[in-house]
This record gives sequence, structure tokens and C-alpha cells, in this order.
Amino acid sequence: MNHTILEYKGLYERLSAYAESDFYPFHMPGHKRAKLPFPNPYQIDITEIDGFDNLHCAEEILLEAQERLKKLYRSRKSFYLVNGSTCGILSAAGALSQPGDQVLIARNCHKSVYNAVKLFGLRAGYIYPEIMKCGIQGQVNADAVRNALRCYPDTKLVVLTSPTYDGIVSDIGSIAKIVHKQDAYLIVDEAHGAHFSLGGPFPESALRLGADIVIQSLHKTLPSFTQTAALHIGTDRVDADRVMEMLAVFQTSSPSYLFMAGMEQCVAMLEQSGKQMFDAFDKKLSGFYDACQGLERLHVLDKKDYEAGRVFDADRSKIVISTQGTSMDGKKLYDMLLERYHLQMELYSAQYVLAMTSIMDTQEGFDRLLRALLEIDAQLRKKDEMQKAAACWNDMQDNENEKNRSNAKEVSGAEIFLRRMYGKRKKVLEISETRYYNKEEILLQESAGRVCAEYIYLYPPGIPAIVPGEEISLDFIKALDECRRTGLNVLGMKDRQCRRVSVITQIETDRCSQAGAEIT
Amino acid sequence: MNHTILEYKGLYERLSAYAESDFYPFHMPGHKRAKLPFPNPYQIDITEIDGFDNLHCAEEILLEAQERLKKLYRSRKSFYLVNGSTCGILSAAGALSQPGDQVLIARNCHKSVYNAVKLFGLRAGYIYPEIMKCGIQGQVNADAVRNALRCYPDTKLVVLTSPTYDGIVSDIGSIAKIVHKQDAYLIVDEAHGAHFSLGGPFPESALRLGADIVIQSLHKTLPSFTQTAALHIGTDRVDADRVMEMLAVFQTSSPSYLFMAGMEQCVAMLEQSGKQMFDAFDKKLSGFYDACQGLERLHVLDKKDYEAGRVFDADRSKIVISTQGTSMDGKKLYDMLLERYHLQMELYSAQYVLAMTSIMDTQEGFDRLLRALLEIDAQLRKKDEMQKAAACWNDMQDNENEKNRSNAKEVSGAEIFLRRMYGKRKKVLEISETRYYNKEEILLQESAGRVCAEYIYLYPPGIPAIVPGEEISLDFIKALDECRRTGLNVLGMKDRQCRRVSVITQIETDRCSQAGAEIT
Repeated sequence: MNHTILEYKGLYERLSAYAESDFYPFHMPGHKRAKLPFPNPYQIDITEIDGFDNLHCAEEILLEAQERLKKLYRSRKSFYLVNGSTCGILSAAGALSQPGDQVLIARNCHKSVYNAVKLFGLRAGYIYPEIMKCGIQGQVNADAVRNALRCYPDTKLVVLTSPTYDGIVSDIGSIAKIVHKQDAYLIVDEAHGAHFSLGGPFPESALRLGADIVIQSLHKTLPSFTQTAALHIGTDRVDADRVMEMLAVFQTSSPSYLFMAGMEQCVAMLEQSGKQMFDAFDKKLSGFYDACQGLERLHVLDKKDYEAGRVFDADRSKIVISTQGTSMDGKKLYDMLLERYHLQMELYSAQYVLAMTSIMDTQEGFDRLLRALLEIDAQLRKKDEMQKAAACWNDMQDNENEKNRSNAKEVSGAEIFLRRMYGKRKKVLEISETRYYNKEEILLQESAGRVCAEYIYLYPPGIPAIVPGEEISLDFIKALDECRRTGLNVLGMKDRQCRRVSVITQIETDRCSQAGAEIT
Repeated sequence: MNHTILEYKGLYERLSAYAESDFYPFHMPGHKRAKLPFPNPYQIDITEIDGFDNLHCAEEILLEAQERLKKLYRSRKSFYLVNGSTCGILSAAGALSQPGDQVLIARNCHKSVYNAVKLFGLRAGYIYPEIMKCGIQGQVNADAVRNALRCYPDTKLVVLTSPTYDGIVSDIGSIAKIVHKQDAYLIVDEAHGAHFSLGGPFPESALRLGADIVIQSLHKTLPSFTQTAALHIGTDRVDADRVMEMLAVFQTSSPSYLFMAGMEQCVAMLEQSGKQMFDAFDKKLSGFYDACQGLERLHVLDKKDYEAGRVFDADRSKIVISTQGTSMDGKKLYDMLLERYHLQMELYSAQYVLAMTSIMDTQEGFDRLLRALLEIDAQLRKKDEMQKAAACWNDMQDNENEKNRSNAKEVSGAEIFLRRMYGKRKKVLEISETRYYNKEEILLQESAGRVCAEYIYLYPPGIPAIVPGEEISLDFIKALDECRRTGLNVLGMKDRQCRRVSVITQIETDRCSQAGAEIT
């Protein structure tokens, strides 16, 4: 981040300075800070006065606004959300389950799904997504869902994320059939796919493929304010009244009219010129992807990679730039794009950087990103050649090269890292049971075999790598260690330094003492 | 509402038209639609990018912003809330309780408190506020709290609302001592009192009086966007980490930077010129209250009324205009102020109208309200005189007079109505237990003695008159009937016409069959 901007100590001033700067947003929200028409927000920020309806029992103008949303997405019923997809997930899970129900959730679900499991006292089984060679989490296979349902035949509810943060899409059509055959419900967290089925070369929305409830973050990929989202009912198996009851629990009783007016504007824009905007977007995206063929060291994931990763489909609006096989890791590329080129990416992981794009992106934005990648790529090539030459002359290499080499080694371990970080965990307690146990904080290095008492996850994307009640494995400890070294942002641990982990006091598995010794 | 404004069918257009109109807001939000400086909101609406911190684990600019909030209110720790006081209540209750705990809640608590009871599987006992002669709910007496704690000696948590929607303040200082003596926690829902302890002639905040957690809606009485609020920790008995964990459950993982910038602006304004603004506000309020002494039929509640109502203290910024003893009910006065004078009040009840004021109100606003009340008062006087004269000449009166008389009769029954509507109910099941029972919808008139399966409340203020698991009494049925007749807005029943009520199928008390017959 630019130092002049960081000099502003107040949030409002810093935001204003940032708005004036030349930093380009390859990140959420999907409106990309475009100056869409909007009055001074205080002037139209009201409460439920006469003539302006009540979101929690909409009968007039807010009912009509939500009807337009429903029509746009062709759902059975659609709701404005003012507390993000988070409240949509909690409400959907609450509406479609009873306390004690068995549920199956994809392991790469957002934290709110885990929170729902705990709040509603559900029993959770997990479906693990596949892991792609390039080091990103792949699809949830329909067969994996079928198998999981065989293991848990009393499953009442299945929750999946599609597309993922990285744009990986699962075969919702087949999965919905499998889930419904067992008379269970299917919730699809489509937070990252609000632009699906609206135009352009994007996958179909889960709403058209049989999901019972679909939740979308309007702000993530569409021109709508941060924190706005939508819950859509996709089948007549869902009791809309129960959903509304739940929404009234997890959303403020004073919902923002700014947000609602913003969502209405977004829907209106899509109704009026969605098709043209998506066509233009497609053209920009295609041009960008084509030009990226010229990269020799960096690599932008494309159709071939997704096919190789046995992925059902992918969302092209999420541009995954891989550093695999180069002397650069994700963080370094991310920092370089930010500091040298003033291009703010959405996230970095060990081996890649993610650029989020939307119909609001400009050709100038795409051009700047392309130029930057081509420049960095050329440097990487030059560096490689110099290194090769230097190696011929002298086996002794300087520290920098040593570092690069070790980076390169790590890079090839992308898949290993991912398997360690998001691998299968042994469930000792249900999440909701852990609150009945005492906890203690111990050194992470001595925690193998103990039962974790906290969520630990990388942010972004905010997917728990371990949840309360699961056994801490050696592999997991190694993965956390790697995160620390590569500068990934580990959250959830009370100890911000990630040296100590909270575990259940009473429970120790037999592997505990040895395991601790092994890894110090 | 003005018909020209209602002609706008889109929310955004209608809001914009309303902003341009001459309607004056005697309602929330507290910024009163003043044109405070703010850029085009899309331009500064971002997500958690570099340099802008993360609300859910604030370490830099958002930590500092919340530190300023903390300093302003002199709390132990303060949090920005982007999902209203609702999420603050849920989080506070979750952080200070364990499943199965006994809690005591004031019966006039916001619905979110009841939702917390259900979500966290708590056992609820109720403390009933006193009822004032003028027909509004009074304070929660410290003795009532002491007695309730004797009845429920294993109580872990007490939740109160102070001030109420109508501005009634309880003796939090004494209550906190009583609660702490029993080693329980005290949460005060101060949603309507964010302006306390900041200046002017307002009561002390519960934060200064020993409450463990205090929740305030910044938007209600201060210049801050609708849906923004604050949670303050008041004592060192509270584990801030548990509060943060809960806030991460009930708030979106994509909190709005508009909201956060707005809250920061609000705090900055109060730091810089809070004292002067509150002094000026006090002057305007005093002038208004003094001038209202001139009213002969309408009556603005003042110190004498609150003393007579044995209320500990009252918030003068909430102006309660009583129609008691006149030929007008609350709704009629409200409609007249709205339609004839373009003054939008906050709410009406059977016998009064509530005007909410803040430091952002203008002298012109107060003057317009005063002129309107004086005019209406004069008309009421004239009408009374004419009626008296007419009555001398002829005992036969026209329909209008008949209606007025019956209105007047109802008015004198304000207290009776309130006792019926918010009277003590027999708890048959805990709220959280009701989900295990089958429900059916039956005619309201035949429901006496049955166990209610839904919340029923007036909106505003949104306080449940009955909660799931409680027995429906004849008195309650009569009160609902009265609400319907006087045009009060009854919410919560699945049947919007309020003819049918959802009850538990399996349970019938012995009074059921007769009771139904009695009231048809």
C-alpha cells in the first residue's frame, strides 16, 4: 500500500484518499468503485416510515423490489439480505434442519456453515473437495456426495460452495438429483457466483440446477454495496415462512435503506443493460486470456488446467495467476503488483494470486494487469537465464539464489501443502459439544494428537482448516508452520502469533506425547 | 404519505423524491437526513484490502477507530456493529451464557433477546415492567429484579431495556448491584440511548452504572447510518474474546466500510463539537417543552407525569404526545401530523404519538411541530365546545360524535389495554422446546387456553406480547381485537389478517373449550 495513503490515520480520510488514487481494484466489491449515480447517502437513509414498507414483512415497495430480484434470477422467491451471505447461510441452514439432524457439508464451506452447525446443534459429516495439481481446491465430486450419503444415510441437509473463491464449479445438477433422491435438502453457497445465469460465458446458477436454497453475495461480483446479498428459494420443497422467520433472527430489525436502494439499482441495471454489459465483459476477458498465452513463466489458469484438474466447470471472471515453477511465490507477486503497479489483487495463496473481475471492470484495468504480468514474466525469464549462466561459471550461489531455489522447491510442494492444510481430520467431538469441555492453551508444536478447541483458517478465503472437536495432526502443524514462513494470514487462533493453540483439556489421544516429540 | 411520492414505484426514486420533499423527520435515524459530508458511496465502499484492516480481527485502523469509540463512551472495550443492535444482543447473550442457563429478561425486551433465548437453549424467566396510567410501559423496578432473582436463584444473566422506545429509564445502578450480588451478568439494551452520557440533560448511560455489556444503536439517536450500532463492555467480568467470537457469528464476514466510515464520522463529530451540539439541543428541547404547557387538550408528557408513573428517569429527547381524554386516538393524531403538516412521527400507539429528536434536529423542525400541536389543540377545544353546545340542544348526536365518544371511552381504558396486551402470561413450554411440537392454525377466537406457537407483537415497538410456549388468555384475545379495531400494526402471526393463530397441537389446558365459547 502506498505510504501517502497510509499516512491518513482516520478511516474516512484514508478511504477518500484511496478513492482519489490510481490503485485499480481487482477485488470485491463488484462495482469496482465506479461512480454510479447516488445522492448524499444521509439524505435517503431512512427507517420504516409510512410509504417505505418493512423488509421483515414486506408488502409493498420492498415486496415489489424483491419480486424484481426473483424475476431476474427466475427463483421461486428471493430475499434481499443486508447482513451478507453470512446471514443467508445461517437462515437457510436453520430453516431446513431440526436440532440433532445429520448434515453433510463440503469441507471448503465458509465459516458461517460451521457456525450454523454449532448454533442449531447439528451433527456434521464432511465431503472433501478434490485437490488440483496447481495447488487449488477442486470440485466436490458428485460421486463423493453419493458415497458420503451412503455413509450417513440419515442426512437431512447437504451444503456446498460453488463456485469457490477461486472459481471452481461443481456439478450441482447431478448432485441435486443425488441429494433429493435421499430426500435431503441442498443448499448451495453461491456467494461468489451472483453473476451466473445473467449473461456471458459463465456457468449456470445452482438455482437453475435443482438446489433448494441458493445464497449469493451481490456485492462480490455485481455492482452492489459491500454486505448486500440475496437468498433465493429454488424449489417448492422449501417453506418460505421458516426462511423468513430465520432471516428476522439473523438480520437487524433496522435494515439499511441505502443497501436496499443499492440492490434495487443493481437489479435495474442488470434488467436494462445486463446482456450488453456481460457481452462487453466477455470480450474484455477473452482478450485478456488470449494475450496471457504469451506468458512463459507466470501462468494464467485456463480451460486446459481445469480439465486436467477434473473440474466440472470454472468461473472465468476469477483470474488465477499461478507462480508455480518460478522463483516467486504468491505473496511476492501480489506485493509486486500492488506496490509497483498499483494493482490491488483479491488474494494471494502460497502459489497463486487471484484477480476478481466483474462487468464493471474497464479495458484500462485489464490492460494494466496484462502489461504488469508481461513485464514481471520477462524479468523472471531474464533472472532464470542469468542464474543459469551464473551456475555454469560457479557452483557457489548467493543467498538470494538460495532463497529462490528453496522457494521453487516449496512451489512444487503446492499440492502437498494443500493436502496438509485442508486434509481430512479425525472428528472427536461435534462442534456444538466442545462448549461443554474445559480448554487450555498449549504450544502448537506439542499439540499433535490433542483435540482442537478453535477454528483455524487462512484469510482469505476464510475456510476452516480445522474446526473445534477435531484432532490436530502432525501434518496440520507442519502446514501451519509453512503458512507462517510464507506470510499467509492465519486467523482464528487466540494467540495472534500462532505459537499456542487452544485444545480441549480432558481429552488426549494415545498418539499425543510421541507426536509432540517428533516434530520439535 | 404524500401521493406524489407514492407514485414513484422504485425504491431509489421514492427515497430521492422523499429527500426532496418538505416532510420533516421526527423519527430515526438520528442524522435526520442532514447533508453531512460524504462522497459518492460507491467510491469508498471497499473490502478488506491492504491498509484497511479487518473488523473481525482489527489490528490497525479499525482497532484505532474502535478505540476512539471506547474513549468517547469510557468503556472497557467497544465494538462497531454493522448488523444493528440485534447482532449485539445475540452476541452478548451468547457470550455471557451457557446452554441451559437460567436467564431473567424484562418482558419489554426487543425480539432479539427472545431469539437469543431460543438459539442458545436458555430457560427464561420474566420481569414485568410497571404500567403507567398514561398508557405506556414504565420502568423495571429494582425490587422486581430482586424478587425475580429470589424466585430464580440460579439466574446467570439478566437482560433489560433502558431507555425504552418511549424513553423510560430504569434504575440501572441499583439493579446492577443486585444482579452482581447474585454473581449474575447484566446486559442493558440501550439501543435507544446512544446519546446518554455525552452531554445535555440526559440520563447516565448504563455503561457508567455497572452494566456488564451495553448495546447501543448509533443510528437511532445519533448522526450515524441506519443499521450501525455499538457493543460496549462495561466491566472486567466479561471475556472480550468470547464476545468477539460471537460477533463473528452474527455479523457478515464482509462488513460495510461505508458504515464503518460513517460511525467514525459520528464519533469524530461528537469528540469535536458534541458538547456544543448537546447544549444547543437542550435549549431547543426546553423551549419546546415550555411552549407545550400551552396545550389544553393534547398533552406532552413531562417530569410530573414521569414522577406520577414512579419512573426512575426519562429521556427528554423522546417526545410523547398523549391524546388521552380527547376525541382523538394516537393514530388519528399521527395521520393528521403526517398528512396535514408533513411531520413524520416515529410511531403511534392507542393513546399517544412519539416524536424522536436528536442533536441534528433544527429549530424549524421544533417550531413546525409546536405550531401543528397548538393548531390541533385549538380545534379539539373548539370541537368540545361545539359538542357541549349541541348536547344542550339535542340529545341525539350524529355518527361522528358517537364515534368520538366511543374513542374517548377507549382512551380512558389505555391502562387496561396495556395490561391485557402485555400482561403476565403462563409459560407452558420454554421457547426452544416449542420446535419439537406439531403446530396448527386455529381461529383466534377459539384459542383461549391453547399454547401459542408464534410471537405476536405490535410494530413499532416490536416487543412480543406473547411468545411461543405461552398460554393464550381471553384478555389477550380481547387486546388483539382492540388492536385491530384501532388500526395498530400487529405482526408475527402467519395469518396477516390476524384471524387465525398458530398453536401447539398436542397441548390443551382444561379451560380451552369453554373459553372459546365465552368470547365469540
